[in-house]
Amino acid sequence: MAKQARAIRTRRQILEAAGAVFDEFGYDAATIAEILARAGVTKGALYFHFSSKEELARGVLDQAVTTEGILPQESKLQEFVDIGMVLAHRLPREPLLSACIRLSADHAARELLGTSWPAWTEFMAEQLRGAKEQGELLPHVVPEDTATVVVGAWTGMEVISVGLKGEESLEQWIAKLYDHLLPGIAVPGVLRRLDTAPDRGARIWETYLEVRDTLAPAE
Amino acid sequence: MAKQARAIRTRRQILEAAGAVFDEFGYDAATIAEILARAGVTKGALYFHFSSKEELARGVLDQAVTTEGILPQESKLQEFVDIGMVLAHRLPREPLLSACIRLSADHAARELLGTSWPAWTEFMAEQLRGAKEQGELLPHVVPEDTATVVVGAWTGMEVISVGLKGEESLEQWIAKLYDHLLPGIAVPGVLRRLDTAPDRGARIWETYLEVRDTLAPAE
Repeated sequence: MAKQARAIRTRRQILEAAGAVFDEFGYDAATIAEILARAGVTKGALYFHFSSKEELARGVLDQAVTTEGILPQESKLQEFVDIGMVLAHRLPREPLLSACIRLSADHAARELLGTSWPAWTEFMAEQLRGAKEQGELLPHVVPEDTATVVVGAWTGMEVISVGLKGEESLEQWIAKLYDHLLPGIAVPGVLRRLDTAPDRGARIWETYLEVRDTLAPAE
Repeated sequence: MAKQARAIRTRRQILEAAGAVFDEFGYDAATIAEILARAGVTKGALYFHFSSKEELARGVLDQAVTTEGILPQESKLQEFVDIGMVLAHRLPREPLLSACIRLSADHAARELLGTSWPAWTEFMAEQLRGAKEQGELLPHVVPEDTATVVVGAWTGMEVISVGLKGEESLEQWIAKLYDHLLPGIAVPGVLRRLDTAPDRGARIWETYLEVRDTLAPAE
C-alpha cells in the first residue's frame, strides 16, 4: 500500500512536470529529457509509467476534465457557473491544466491526441439539463448548444487573455463572459441571484480545500 | 502601372500560398520551400517580396483584420453582428484567414509575431461605441469589454468547431454564439430585429461581391 501510494505520487510528479513542459514549449518542441529534468525522477521511473511522449501527453489530457472543487449548490445553474469560475481560478496556477488547452489548441497535437472538448461539452450539458429540469433556463435553451458555446467561448477567452496587455486576470474575463451569456439563458428570477463575481472561483475553491481537509486529514 | 499590378498579384499569390502552408503545418513546421512550391512563383520573386519565413508570417497576419464585405446598416449593432458572420462565412473558404487564427493561437508564433487580437478588439469596440450612441445597447454595456468577450468567444468557437464531430458549420456556431450574447447587450426593441440567421454572412458577402463588381468592372 505504501508502495502504491509512492507510485501514485511519482506518476503525479511526472505528469505535472510534463504539463509544465508541454505548456511552455508545445507538443512538438517538448522533449522527454526536459520532462525528466523537471520531474526529478529517474529515467526508469518515468518509463515505468509512460513509454513515450505521446503517452505523456495523453496522461496530461486525461487530467483535463476536472470537477475537483465544485460544491453542490441549490441552483444547478450556479454550479454550471462555478465550474467555469473554479477552472478560471485554478488554470493559471496549475500548468497541468493550461497544458491541456495548449495541446488541444494545437492542430497537429490535436490530430494525434484528440481533445477533451467533447467530454467537457457533455459534462456542461448535463449540468444544464439539471438546471432545465429545475426550471432555471429560458424555454428556448438547448442544453447541448449552450454547453458547446460556453466551452468554446471559455477556451477562446483563455487563449486570447494570455495575449492581452491589460491587467485583468482570466477570472475577471470569465466573469465577464458569464455576465454576457447568462441573460440569454437564465430566467430572470434565477439570473439576478447568480454569483458571477470574479472571486467566486477562489472562494469556492478555498471552501472546497477546507472541506476536503476535514474529510481526509493529512497523513 | 501594369508592372505594379503584376507585383501586387504576385505578392497576393505568395501570401495565399503562405497562408495555406501555415494553416496546414503551423509556424514551426512550415518551410519556405513548401510555400514556394504552392505559390508557383520563382524563388527570386518570393525573396523580392519577403526575406524570411517570419516576414511571410507577418504578411499573412497583416491580412487578419479585414472588414471586406461589410455593408453599412442602419443598425450599428447589426453591422457588429455582420462582421462576425461574414468572417465565419469567409474563414473556412480562405486559408489566409484561418492561418491568422492558427498563428495567433500558437504560443511560440505569438511571442515572435504578436497577434491581431488587440486590433480586432479595438475595431469591434468602435462599432459598439457607435451602437451605444444610437441607443442600441443596454446602459451597463462597456464597449471595450464586450468587444473583448466577443473576439475571445469567436476565436474559441473557431478553435473548437474544427474539432467537433458534428455536421454544424462555423457559421452555425457563430450564429448561436451571437444568439447567446446579444440578449445581454442589446435593448429589446433592437434585439428582436437583429438578423443572426446562419446564412447572414453568406448573403451579405454575396451582395458585397455584386456591388463591388458594379463599382469596379473586371479588367
